[in-house]
Amino acid sequence: MDHGAFAESVRADAGDWDRSGGVPAEVVRAVAEAGFLAADVPVRYGGRGWSPTEVGRLCEDFGGVCSALRALVTVQGMVAAAVLRWGDAEQRDRWLPALTSGGVVAGFAATEAGAGSDLAAVSTSLDGGLLRGRKLWVTFGAVADVFLVLASSAGRPVAVLVEAGQPGVSVEPVSGQLGLRAAWIAHVGFDGVPVAEVLAPPGFGLSHVVGTALDHGRFTVAWGCAGMAAACLERAVEHVKTRVQGGVPLSSHPAVRAVLGRCLVEVRAARRLCAHATASRERGDPEALAETVLAKYGAARAASVVAEHAVRLHGAAGIAPDSAVGRFHRDAAVMRVIEGADEVAEQHLGGYALRGGS
Amino acid sequence: MDHGAFAESVRADAGDWDRSGGVPAEVVRAVAEAGFLAADVPVRYGGRGWSPTEVGRLCEDFGGVCSALRALVTVQGMVAAAVLRWGDAEQRDRWLPALTSGGVVAGFAATEAGAGSDLAAVSTSLDGGLLRGRKLWVTFGAVADVFLVLASSAGRPVAVLVEAGQPGVSVEPVSGQLGLRAAWIAHVGFDGVPVAEVLAPPGFGLSHVVGTALDHGRFTVAWGCAGMAAACLERAVEHVKTRVQGGVPLSSHPAVRAVLGRCLVEVRAARRLCAHATASRERGDPEALAETVLAKYGAARAASVVAEHAVRLHGAAGIAPDSAVGRFHRDAAVMRVIEGADEVAEQHLGGYALRGGS
Amino acid sequence: MDHGAFAESVRADAGDWDRSGGVPAEVVRAVAEAGFLAADVPVRYGGRGWSPTEVGRLCEDFGGVCSALRALVTVQGMVAAAVLRWGDAEQRDRWLPALTSGGVVAGFAATEAGAGSDLAAVSTSLDGGLLRGRKLWVTFGAVADVFLVLASSAGRPVAVLVEAGQPGVSVEPVSGQLGLRAAWIAHVGFDGVPVAEVLAPPGFGLSHVVGTALDHGRFTVAWGCAGMAAACLERAVEHVKTRVQGGVPLSSHPAVRAVLGRCLVEVRAARRLCAHATASRERGDPEALAETVLAKYGAARAASVVAEHAVRLHGAAGIAPDSAVGRFHRDAAVMRVIEGADEVAEQHLGGYALRGGS
Amino acid sequence: MDHGAFAESVRADAGDWDRSGGVPAEVVRAVAEAGFLAADVPVRYGGRGWSPTEVGRLCEDFGGVCSALRALVTVQGMVAAAVLRWGDAEQRDRWLPALTSGGVVAGFAATEAGAGSDLAAVSTSLDGGLLRGRKLWVTFGAVADVFLVLASSAGRPVAVLVEAGQPGVSVEPVSGQLGLRAAWIAHVGFDGVPVAEVLAPPGFGLSHVVGTALDHGRFTVAWGCAGMAAACLERAVEHVKTRVQGGVPLSSHPAVRAVLGRCLVEVRAARRLCAHATASRERGDPEALAETVLAKYGAARAASVVAEHAVRLHGAAGIAPDSAVGRFHRDAAVMRVIEGADEVAEQHLGGYALRGGS
Repeated sequence: MDHGAFAESVRADAGDWDRSGGVPAEVVRAVAEAGFLAADVPVRYGGRGWSPTEVGRLCEDFGGVCSALRALVTVQGMVAAAVLRWGDAEQRDRWLPALTSGGVVAGFAATEAGAGSDLAAVSTSLDGGLLRGRKLWVTFGAVADVFLVLASSAGRPVAVLVEAGQPGVSVEPVSGQLGLRAAWIAHVGFDGVPVAEVLAPPGFGLSHVVGTALDHGRFTVAWGCAGMAAACLERAVEHVKTRVQGGVPLSSHPAVRAVLGRCLVEVRAARRLCAHATASRERGDPEALAETVLAKYGAARAASVVAEHAVRLHGAAGIAPDSAVGRFHRDAAVMRVIEGADEVAEQHLGGYALRGGS
Repeated sequence: MDHGAFAESVRADAGDWDRSGGVPAEVVRAVAEAGFLAADVPVRYGGRGWSPTEVGRLCEDFGGVCSALRALVTVQGMVAAAVLRWGDAEQRDRWLPALTSGGVVAGFAATEAGAGSDLAAVSTSLDGGLLRGRKLWVTFGAVADVFLVLASSAGRPVAVLVEAGQPGVSVEPVSGQLGLRAAWIAHVGFDGVPVAEVLAPPGFGLSHVVGTALDHGRFTVAWGCAGMAAACLERAVEHVKTRVQGGVPLSSHPAVRAVLGRCLVEVRAARRLCAHATASRERGDPEALAETVLAKYGAARAASVVAEHAVRLHGAAGIAPDSAVGRFHRDAAVMRVIEGADEVAEQHLGGYALRGGS
Repeated sequence: MDHGAFAESVRADAGDWDRSGGVPAEVVRAVAEAGFLAADVPVRYGGRGWSPTEVGRLCEDFGGVCSALRALVTVQGMVAAAVLRWGDAEQRDRWLPALTSGGVVAGFAATEAGAGSDLAAVSTSLDGGLLRGRKLWVTFGAVADVFLVLASSAGRPVAVLVEAGQPGVSVEPVSGQLGLRAAWIAHVGFDGVPVAEVLAPPGFGLSHVVGTALDHGRFTVAWGCAGMAAACLERAVEHVKTRVQGGVPLSSHPAVRAVLGRCLVEVRAARRLCAHATASRERGDPEALAETVLAKYGAARAASVVAEHAVRLHGAAGIAPDSAVGRFHRDAAVMRVIEGADEVAEQHLGGYALRGGS
Repeated sequence: MDHGAFAESVRADAGDWDRSGGVPAEVVRAVAEAGFLAADVPVRYGGRGWSPTEVGRLCEDFGGVCSALRALVTVQGMVAAAVLRWGDAEQRDRWLPALTSGGVVAGFAATEAGAGSDLAAVSTSLDGGLLRGRKLWVTFGAVADVFLVLASSAGRPVAVLVEAGQPGVSVEPVSGQLGLRAAWIAHVGFDGVPVAEVLAPPGFGLSHVVGTALDHGRFTVAWGCAGMAAACLERAVEHVKTRVQGGVPLSSHPAVRAVLGRCLVEVRAARRLCAHATASRERGDPEALAETVLAKYGAARAASVVAEHAVRLHGAAGIAPDSAVGRFHRDAAVMRVIEGADEVAEQHLGGYALRGGS
């Protein structure tokens, strides 16, 4: 089953997952078995060697039905990307086949209570081989088998791989957050957990390992948002075509058409910005990271704007418990915060403009 | 206790009510006992004879802590306003003291599956004295003692008062909707319920009775939104003053200050538009209804914009389960739909501009 | 003739003044004779003792027909306010009657090539009683009789009054700028001009004298922008009522009405923000300066937004040489730069929010 | 000389042309000699057979220095496209070589006093072979050698070619309009002018001939706007890097960087939307016309937004007579009106969304 068909097959379930608070384990397995996890990892490590274009399409399709499903692809891809780029041969051989097969589900644990966008302020420590600290907002953290953890060791940032399920690792699931409710978000504590696996040399943990992961994450979030924006428009179109008001379908009201027109431009711009970042990644553009920030920022904003319009075009149906556009509205707000909030991205992009980006 | 103090006293609880899905009965009673329900009803009917200014302040204070609490004031006030204006002496004597004392909680039942902004298309019928139909999205409907129901009788709109708890009245609570989660929203069915009380002559049900109620509702929602916008800014200010990033509080980042500046202008404009509508109501301006539409539109949009910024300024804390700004973000989206969505209001206001509004 | 009637009487001429590049001298005289210059100066100095409310109405009326006429009131009022507040008895006696009678037209000369919003960087110097430097963008500078000049003396800012028409004062009129084309804008050079009159003690020139003038200026610009926004809406309404498209007037197109509705909210918010700043000035609110920044920022933005819509609603007529809304569109862009650009105001207002403004 | 170099070579002159009110005749000739006019016409008719991509790049380069120069390419291309598609063999042989060589400059004359976006209401008539009527806002009309004129004949729309310089053709140059001041805009009257050349069968004049021309025009305007947006950002970047405020360049102010970041996203989105429309034209997408409307709408809006920011980032320099961004600000406002104003485009795009565009 290709990812379009897969997405379509779960479209009716996404609302239930959001309400119950988690993508079911069998769905996670099905995603893995279909080969959608870390699919850009080379074939020799069990991946499919997908190009950014292919990964982008997957995320667009998943983002159009369920942000949590897309988030699964995101986080698994982030950790795999970090291992592929910064792990040694042994680490790659151990973890990449497990990540691509879904044998292990990964969590990315960087954020702390005192350090959101400011990861340099991390207080989780790796001392004498023992990890101590508490990480927040770990996507799929409640069901993860392994965590990529950003810590500080002898004053330098390190990134380590830590298995869940061992003594000293505590997992505190989060529920009721604004969006991404089916993404098994958890806070994760490490209370003197022995760590054997450090990715990359000490000092590389933040700018290199976490940098690689976040860049990969932004790329998948961007496409997920493009899909979300398109889905919101599509559902708004369905609604206004069938909903009759004053004896005619809403779609024949010019004020409604004007809103749809504005939304279409947002959807299209989101997708084109993503496609451009994708191309820059594929040709190894030295500014591919900035291009990805640009795409994520633009697409998340578009998703948020279109979701807001879609809720309003749905009227009461947009607010209803089973409203997909209502769910997207909540999810889109989250997208404008994670992996670099709008305000952080604007500084980054301002810098890009100053060095000639256009 | 004045309403400012009352609001402050429940500020810490509003999040719990939102999660559990209802303002507790004892809080509803306390609001009633404090004299905050239908307080603009004349003293001879048990009200306090409050001016629009006083009602506005109440709603601003309540809106700043809990939209559901404000919604209680809204719906009770809507029904009381309709009874006061369109009821006969007996109806006033019977219902107004009960509404002002909180002896009965009222629900306003106009929306149907096929009729949102288009109330003329109502299919609930009053035939031979029996009411049949199903009303959606009745705020405080799950705990209401009486409903003001819009129906159609012999092809003409009528507004009737129907007591809950009698045979044929079924109440289906709604949970998990986008916002207003503590407002006891319910769908309510009427299956051949005998109706004795019709407000106003047949034909007056929609434009007059429901019109009076909606106008009153918009007024209270407008002030609630002004309070919500102000609360979002206030909480954002608190957050950025204490949250340290890069060694300095967020508040010292110029990009953060710029966002706060923009939010302040939104908050202020919302409040001034509400104050202007209030004055127009107090002096009996023939355009007071249009002024109120303007205030509601402007304030709801401001609340939505400021809430969105406030979530982002909070970062992960804005998305967290216990985030007040996250709750306001969801509630504000609802405010831009109810009592006339943005798009409906824009048509109304365009017409006002064409006849000389400025 | 009151200011409303005066404004109406010149409404048809404003476009010509814009094209020819100056408000005619006889109109300046008529404004003075009608008592509209520095009208808030006390009666004993020849003024009319007008309240901020009265000055605001004047500027709103003038702003609705001609930004340059409003600018005349602005600059004369700025210099008069500075003299009234910081001049000694002799200076007041000499200058205020001349300013209120229009016997002298004043220019306010602060900006320099290297110092826009950053007035502290002024390089014009007062040394040994001689003034040397070049000031840019002096409104009504080409016809002014006296300049209030910000200079630096022994490292401290001073504000001095310098008469035009004396040796060493050179005036270079500016034409073809984006907006405010009838406002006799000039660059003014001072090449060793003897200065006798210093306002306020050395060191007070910038924060006190110029501060007073700019605060007054922002107040009048704010009301001028409110008037401009209202005029743009009014003219758009006139246009869409008469312009027929597809057999019906443009005004009956719902998409057009939606735009008018949005514009009405902008116009109203602008006026209410101005009224609030006015009240804060009248009651001596310690935050009146910040309130005025808020009003100016909000009103200038509103004028710019409404002008843009009005141009589009006019279609080709909005672009035509004689288009009033096209002129307002250019003027509004200027209003968002002068006396503190949007970005500067946002920092100011962010600070206000942080210290409790709401 | 390629078009990038050509554009660069006239960059310093564009402001002068704007002030003097026309692109000089020798520059028009140089554009023609360089082969930039109607370059998409096949080689056998004297064109260069350029693809939409190549035409787009030309317009982007020209749009980045001078809207009037881009408008020359636009109007010549519009008329050539109409002749190529709807002319007979003789008409093609006669006109296309003349248009591509610049031997004749063409004007497109559709708009009338009573018919802007509503071309069906045209009142210019072709009766007994004589053309009577008055056309407004003919770009390059003051110097055109031939006009493509939309008229009505026996109740059906016809498009005719009429040479300038013959009795009965009167040309009234327009000056002082909001933007496009160097584009030789004129109103053109036809007082019983004999017409020999009708393009396409009667009845095809509006939907087919004018439709082809407008589609071509929108495409070139879209790319011109993308170029304008990019130029505004580029000039803003130059300015903030060199302008010092508070001892540091403006570019180091985070609030300035945030604005640049937002502008970069606008610039990029504009260009990507144009590129997408270009690809849809190249592959003969049946929705290429709608895609072009989308690109023109998005790019014109982006140009307008970025120009507005660029003016403000320049401060007083943005308002100055010689300000390029001030000129772009005025031109961009015009771009949001011509060839279908925003509001018209939104209806078009809403319809596109309803039939599945995404």
